[in-house]
Amino acid sequence: MERLEYSVIPIGYVENEFEEAKVSPETIRSGVSRIHLKEEYVEGLEGIGAFEKIVIVFLFDRSEGFDLKVHPRGDRSRPMRGVFSTRSPRRPNRIGVTTVDLLSVDGTILNVRGLDAINGTPVLDIKQY
Amino acid sequence: MERLEYSVIPIGYVENEFEEAKVSPETIRSGVSRIHLKEEYVEGLEGIGAFEKIVIVFLFDRSEGFDLKVHPRGDRSRPMRGVFSTRSPRRPNRIGVTTVDLLSVDGTILNVRGLDAINGTPVLDIKQY
Repeated sequence: MERLEYSVIPIGYVENEFEEAKVSPETIRSGVSRIHLKEEYVEGLEGIGAFEKIVIVFLFDRSEGFDLKVHPRGDRSRPMRGVFSTRSPRRPNRIGVTTVDLLSVDGTILNVRGLDAINGTPVLDIKQY
Repeated sequence: MERLEYSVIPIGYVENEFEEAKVSPETIRSGVSRIHLKEEYVEGLEGIGAFEKIVIVFLFDRSEGFDLKVHPRGDRSRPMRGVFSTRSPRRPNRIGVTTVDLLSVDGTILNVRGLDAINGTPVLDIKQY
């Protein structure tokens, strides 16, 4: 009785200065991003300001298709390996999971450093680290 | 231009002895689980055996609805806080993310310890830790 498909709904989105994925993940990660949570979920943030690190689950929505074998970090000098032992965005379900530094919380906005997601990326979850 | 909904597709499922979520997460986590990957994704496992820890992304598919404020770890003696600073399964999108010990790989089966998911749980992704 296996289900073939499930729906997920963005709870918010990422805002930052990175408009396309051609920038290296390291560059994106070094910047500050704002996570805008939808107003209806704001109560779910209560107490989160006490944490220095949180986990962001998001969708690499600009990533299309996937490869089962990839060069780690897109570095062609490194031998290919299976996508499941990498963090490549070109993956089945294109879900990203990143631990970030929580800099501050301002209403429905979380200011974070370390997120490797570009501007407009849909956020699916925020978790305790 | 915000999309309201995205589809995700299970890449496999969890097999273990835990049939319901009433068992504590600690108990489930102490056991061994087998992750059965769908045959079509097996190439994506190449090289994963070299890793001691991997990250499993899954769906708490038996969890229905969510609470924006919860008692951490379901412990009523602890003050409620926002669901996004917890690991509660009763959360928007009910996505679980857990770092597990990879014990062995046998074809399309990963033997892992530390997964807090019950038998039959759909797996969405496997990632480098």
